[in-house]
Amino acid sequence: MSGKISIRLYIGDSLPGTGLATLGPDQSHYLGNVMRASTGMRVALFNGRDGEWAAEVASVQKKAVTLTVAEKLKEQGTEPDLWLVFAPIKKARLDFIAQKATELGVSHLAPVYTRRTIVDRVKTERLDANAIEAAEQCERLTVPTIAEPQKLDKLLAAWPADRRIMFCDEDLSGLPAHAALAAVADKKAAGPWAILIGPEGGFDDDERKMIRSHPNTTVVALGPRVLRADTAAMAAISLWQSALGDW
Amino acid sequence: MSGKISIRLYIGDSLPGTGLATLGPDQSHYLGNVMRASTGMRVALFNGRDGEWAAEVASVQKKAVTLTVAEKLKEQGTEPDLWLVFAPIKKARLDFIAQKATELGVSHLAPVYTRRTIVDRVKTERLDANAIEAAEQCERLTVPTIAEPQKLDKLLAAWPADRRIMFCDEDLSGLPAHAALAAVADKKAAGPWAILIGPEGGFDDDERKMIRSHPNTTVVALGPRVLRADTAAMAAISLWQSALGDW
Repeated sequence: MSGKISIRLYIGDSLPGTGLATLGPDQSHYLGNVMRASTGMRVALFNGRDGEWAAEVASVQKKAVTLTVAEKLKEQGTEPDLWLVFAPIKKARLDFIAQKATELGVSHLAPVYTRRTIVDRVKTERLDANAIEAAEQCERLTVPTIAEPQKLDKLLAAWPADRRIMFCDEDLSGLPAHAALAAVADKKAAGPWAILIGPEGGFDDDERKMIRSHPNTTVVALGPRVLRADTAAMAAISLWQSALGDW
Repeated sequence: MSGKISIRLYIGDSLPGTGLATLGPDQSHYLGNVMRASTGMRVALFNGRDGEWAAEVASVQKKAVTLTVAEKLKEQGTEPDLWLVFAPIKKARLDFIAQKATELGVSHLAPVYTRRTIVDRVKTERLDANAIEAAEQCERLTVPTIAEPQKLDKLLAAWPADRRIMFCDEDLSGLPAHAALAAVADKKAAGPWAILIGPEGGFDDDERKMIRSHPNTTVVALGPRVLRADTAAMAAISLWQSALGDW
């Protein structure tokens, strides 16, 4: 190791173990033109499965930078299995949710259409790009997966039997989040979870009933102030990580 | 009460109890031109001290909207005494910190210059404007106060004897935040606190020593991923509110 490596790249399926890796056009452009990489520069690579690897720039061409993969820097660990199910909101805040949720350690992002959802088209590639960039910067070894948007009733109808739902209800009838999570039985707590956040304006009454009556739901409250959807998501993830995750 | 009031205005010193209130030019413009208020429209007013009041638009002139203050809607409650001390970062993220910290219930925002602080001028009026807007939207009855930026050593040298410091150290040597806060003795926990967040790139080693050696400091960790400064601030506030605040 010669000093700290400041550039980390997620290269999906193209991490070959050891040997030569060739970056695609976008990452080649980024590394060659934006970061002005030259032969011998060291970067870190990860693919979400095989840990983090040091690599050295072997050649720089306009649309194809090749790297020699060297030693493993970090083993792939296990990470919490936490979904964030959220009603899509305006573009800038959607970027923000994808970035912050990635930093805070969410494993899967699932946009959900609700009755009061205003945005009705979600670019999942854009969510993915934001999640990758955040994962590269926050030293994660995985990138959250992104689900195709679904309607709430369909999502709940096909809900996995073993996945708990942390429902942040605005009516404040839930226990404080940390206490509510701590109160869930241990064996359930150790399993997979999802945080469910409504749109600006909240779920409507029928939706709230449907969610609250789901057997997997734990209703929680996030304090006396009205939080925007993105703020509520960040707060809920932080509290979940603290109570049941890897913080 | 005739329906839910959707517009809330912070009017600082000009809430007269009952009687007529005249808005300044900016708020008059907002209410008259942006929101197209007409006589009889109901809004809510707060000043940070006297609770929330219903008011009815009495007259709309271009630069002066007057309101008749009617009944009190909410009593002024007490709120947690929590400072957020943060190294200023780029403009958009600074706006973001002021907005989110307000939503999450911080009482005072204190920008601090550190050795690795890149931004060296902070527009406190801009922080204030962001805090006011967030307070209006999140149904707070107060607006966080904003300190003039200070250097870290000066800030710590004049630190209030009774105010605890939650120091989010990146080296992960601290206890998990929620456990660390819960472990602080009750009488201290009930008192005033500050969350201290470093710049992107972190505090340098001397600064970290200075902070850690302060008698009021509780060192906490925020999980294994590297959080950006603004993300760390949001997570820390959420955990503090959950452990010691009003959530």
